[in-house]
Amino acid sequence: MNGDENRYHLYSVRARYADTDPMGIVYHGRYFEWFEAARTEYLRSMGLPYKRIEEQGISLPVVEAYCRYRRPVVYDESVRVKTVLKEASRSRIHLGYEVLGEEDDIVRVEGYTIHCYVSRNGRPIRAPKELFDFLNTLFSSTE
Amino acid sequence: MNGDENRYHLYSVRARYADTDPMGIVYHGRYFEWFEAARTEYLRSMGLPYKRIEEQGISLPVVEAYCRYRRPVVYDESVRVKTVLKEASRSRIHLGYEVLGEEDDIVRVEGYTIHCYVSRNGRPIRAPKELFDFLNTLFSSTE
Amino acid sequence: MNGDENRYHLYSVRARYADTDPMGIVYHGRYFEWFEAARTEYLRSMGLPYKRIEEQGISLPVVEAYCRYRRPVVYDESVRVKTVLKEASRSRIHLGYEVLGEEDDIVRVEGYTIHCYVSRNGRPIRAPKELFDFLNTLFSSTE
Amino acid sequence: MNGDENRYHLYSVRARYADTDPMGIVYHGRYFEWFEAARTEYLRSMGLPYKRIEEQGISLPVVEAYCRYRRPVVYDESVRVKTVLKEASRSRIHLGYEVLGEEDDIVRVEGYTIHCYVSRNGRPIRAPKELFDFLNTLFSSTE
Repeated sequence: MNGDENRYHLYSVRARYADTDPMGIVYHGRYFEWFEAARTEYLRSMGLPYKRIEEQGISLPVVEAYCRYRRPVVYDESVRVKTVLKEASRSRIHLGYEVLGEEDDIVRVEGYTIHCYVSRNGRPIRAPKELFDFLNTLFSSTE
Repeated sequence: MNGDENRYHLYSVRARYADTDPMGIVYHGRYFEWFEAARTEYLRSMGLPYKRIEEQGISLPVVEAYCRYRRPVVYDESVRVKTVLKEASRSRIHLGYEVLGEEDDIVRVEGYTIHCYVSRNGRPIRAPKELFDFLNTLFSSTE
Repeated sequence: MNGDENRYHLYSVRARYADTDPMGIVYHGRYFEWFEAARTEYLRSMGLPYKRIEEQGISLPVVEAYCRYRRPVVYDESVRVKTVLKEASRSRIHLGYEVLGEEDDIVRVEGYTIHCYVSRNGRPIRAPKELFDFLNTLFSSTE
Repeated sequence: MNGDENRYHLYSVRARYADTDPMGIVYHGRYFEWFEAARTEYLRSMGLPYKRIEEQGISLPVVEAYCRYRRPVVYDESVRVKTVLKEASRSRIHLGYEVLGEEDDIVRVEGYTIHCYVSRNGRPIRAPKELFDFLNTLFSSTE
């Protein structure tokens, strides 16, 4: 064990009726809500709830989002969303996601989101030093 | 023509894949989004966009919501949501809705929402006179 | 211990960004998704996943849904949805819900859903004996 | 006029409260629902409702989805989603989207979806000739 447990976070979620479409599978746009919940819990687990970032007047809006659907997640299926911090610079954050079967660990969906830093008035800003340093501990803790 | 056209408003909407569930019918919770869109267009058609009410520091949060599902709306079906102002007092607004088949005019779903008036700090308030008077024109114009 | 643990079920959920609206509170229509997840976990905890009911050719569509909003649930707030089986007859099921603050146990929202029994072809049916008996064990176990 | 009107389709939509988040802007995952509605209306306008494709036993599930968020769409803002068929081969369809301000025509969001052809049993198939030919008329009509 070398601290690798910090390199990713697992978020469990189960497909609701509300999440699924007439094919009986999770609607493709819904995965972005799971990604959101997954990265929020990741930040919380590292000691920095997203809400606290916002309280400091900083938001991390999504500037790019991508998803690749390999296998469907069906109604009532339980999966884990694995979140990885790919990159954190002073101007943006890049997170990767994999949706894995709870039982079989097979990849259902993979994707990413890219975020920038925005001040209370909606202007893009560079990451404040403390936030930037915090994000980098997510890497350094693994080395 | 006796002004009855003011007593209700019709909002057309079509069931998306995103709205429907594994039974191929609109998810029961989604109708409240249609009701929201319907009442928003009703207010706009009467000359008072909801956004303008909010700009004056007043919100109309939902305090009660109800739906009765008579017949399913299936994927890609086109329906009209009929909105009626049932009651507008100084403390609350009561709106009724019917979801009608575009072709057959048969009721699919009916429901209501009750709203109170809230100030910018989230406290319930009595309706300002101008707003109250406006809402009452929706009745008076029909008599 | 008198079996009271069977009279209700608690489902924990946290408000996502996707669940909340410009007021920073959970959108009123979203609670019905939480109610759905809550009753699904209730059935599962009692040994009868909803999915298995469907596999037997029976669906339990919502025929009525109601919600009363007492206090808002804000972004990132953690709550528990308490589900109670109010009534189960051969023709319908009535479930009640309370959304309670995780910390303070204060009621945020309360509501109910009423379901009927429907066969694979979409026709209302009377509850099969085994399902009816199962639902009634949820009561009897508390006496 | 050279038939260019076939190269794209415009779908009008207005941001609901249900679509927006605590920042008062449309939630990033919601745009995929607008893309879905936009491509559905595009197909319908060309004479081939998606529902009819499904009735022939063919589905077009999303295998990749991407979005780039340039400027936020705020609550109650009215926009047009411009859909363009980028590519249609025997194995996949590639559609591009732009969300444009109703008034200013400025790009808010752009993205794409890639779809494959799937038979009723969920297996990827090659596009049937008629469907493939139809999709190609969307190009040929512009030349």
